[in-house]
Amino acid sequence: MSNNEKIHINKLTIIGVGLIGGSLARALKHANAVDHVVGCGRNADSLETAVKLGVIDSYTTEPAEAVVDADVIVLATPLITTEDLIRKMHPNIKTDAIITDVGSAKGSVVAAAKNVLNDLTRFVPGHPIAGTEKSGVEASFAELFDAHRVILTPIKETDKEATDFITRMWQLTGADVVTMDINKHDQVLAATSHLPHMLAYALVDCLSGMDESEEIFSNAAGGFADFTRIASSSPQMWHDICYSNRESLLRVLEQFDQHLGRIKLAIENDNSAELLELFTRAKQQRDAFLDQRKNRKDACE
Amino acid sequence: MSNNEKIHINKLTIIGVGLIGGSLARALKHANAVDHVVGCGRNADSLETAVKLGVIDSYTTEPAEAVVDADVIVLATPLITTEDLIRKMHPNIKTDAIITDVGSAKGSVVAAAKNVLNDLTRFVPGHPIAGTEKSGVEASFAELFDAHRVILTPIKETDKEATDFITRMWQLTGADVVTMDINKHDQVLAATSHLPHMLAYALVDCLSGMDESEEIFSNAAGGFADFTRIASSSPQMWHDICYSNRESLLRVLEQFDQHLGRIKLAIENDNSAELLELFTRAKQQRDAFLDQRKNRKDACE
Repeated sequence: MSNNEKIHINKLTIIGVGLIGGSLARALKHANAVDHVVGCGRNADSLETAVKLGVIDSYTTEPAEAVVDADVIVLATPLITTEDLIRKMHPNIKTDAIITDVGSAKGSVVAAAKNVLNDLTRFVPGHPIAGTEKSGVEASFAELFDAHRVILTPIKETDKEATDFITRMWQLTGADVVTMDINKHDQVLAATSHLPHMLAYALVDCLSGMDESEEIFSNAAGGFADFTRIASSSPQMWHDICYSNRESLLRVLEQFDQHLGRIKLAIENDNSAELLELFTRAKQQRDAFLDQRKNRKDACE
Repeated sequence: MSNNEKIHINKLTIIGVGLIGGSLARALKHANAVDHVVGCGRNADSLETAVKLGVIDSYTTEPAEAVVDADVIVLATPLITTEDLIRKMHPNIKTDAIITDVGSAKGSVVAAAKNVLNDLTRFVPGHPIAGTEKSGVEASFAELFDAHRVILTPIKETDKEATDFITRMWQLTGADVVTMDINKHDQVLAATSHLPHMLAYALVDCLSGMDESEEIFSNAAGGFADFTRIASSSPQMWHDICYSNRESLLRVLEQFDQHLGRIKLAIENDNSAELLELFTRAKQQRDAFLDQRKNRKDACE
């Protein structure tokens, strides 16, 4: 499939019509790339809202029903539900339907799929690196993925044609799509996303427990607000991510501990030169990251 | 002094015309509260720029010269320089001049002042909880303190009238001014500002050292950018803050370690309920903080 060949989806099923699932549906509708979007979830009220907002065209709370005749099935549900959902959908999935997902950890999703599906040629694990701290279809918007990265982690069984199709699908949302090895994905995400979330949750929890917690929060400023934004994310989702990417996450937690320990020791031992060097190195690295990010955004525009 | 009584400063001396010192000068000029602003610093080029930008009216690189005839003297320099600067200024400070500062740690500033000044009645330690990750007079702007908090930590020797004057001065910038005990200030700031900076520096340093650091930074998203914004702050300034607020900072680092350790243990030991509870509690607390912050901002407008 060439980069310019336009894809079209007759029937798209989104399992889990929240921030990510809803935004994907909106973006594909906006691109006129889909005829009919079926939403599926546990909460009929929320699905009703999604229909009213024009995010989906119809809905059902039964996964087995949702996937009938679907050409593309997107799992955008908590990681922990993946295996159970695939099991329910399995009998009704068309032979040539492509299944993809948006989970923040990929090893556990692939393991879940392998436990149920005999044929993995049309399975394309994926992860859009986008989101806000808000949840739910009301928070969804068509531009969420614009100029953001989407990582696909096709496995050895995956058809190249299926990966190309999902690549084109995400490109229609404005995303920059790359492929990556599953383990590398899980390590990279543990470092850039899962670990920072743990730090933000731990910080807020630590401060809440202090004697001066009232003064602490009433005197916190913009830096603190930015730093802890991610602690307003869905607790259930992050709980699931922790267990789904346990090994990589524990490894980076360990490494982080060592680095924080070095700072602590440099303060304790009056090691002024080392502390200054560490801060200077970190600032340079962070500034370089920002430049790179800016260039990437400019390139997407 | 009533809340409505307008203050006026004939001659204001700003030692350290950077982001904070420069923004204060701009705000007071904007409020027509000052006749003449003298800037002082080590770098004549930067002071020349400050004059060109209209931030200050004149400058000198000699602190002793800068404070001659000054009615209010604001120290907006790195914490570590405080004692040396007060020593240089001391012989030329008018008897009734008010001295204040903007340092992020107050215990060390008070100790420095006590080492030099015989008369502490006109000494009003202060700390505006505002800033960006940028430094220098070019980054200064008159609205920096608008709807932000300024904490004053007058000591037992400080005249009430001097504290009132500095309170009114900061109110003219749009700030919400409160007074606080020095130790409480240093503990609160260690928790809300100094600790998060340590975490951001440690995180960036940790990730830079990883094998996959290139992929890590190229795949990091908005959450990571927000979380690490403060790691782009001045390394020298943060180095100084660490040593100036050493005891409080080490104490919160210890407490944070325990909370992060709890998360780690809950992941290791499959303690799903505890992990979910911790994340839920942290999210609630963080959301409450945001509401409170929003109400405070609304009240200031």
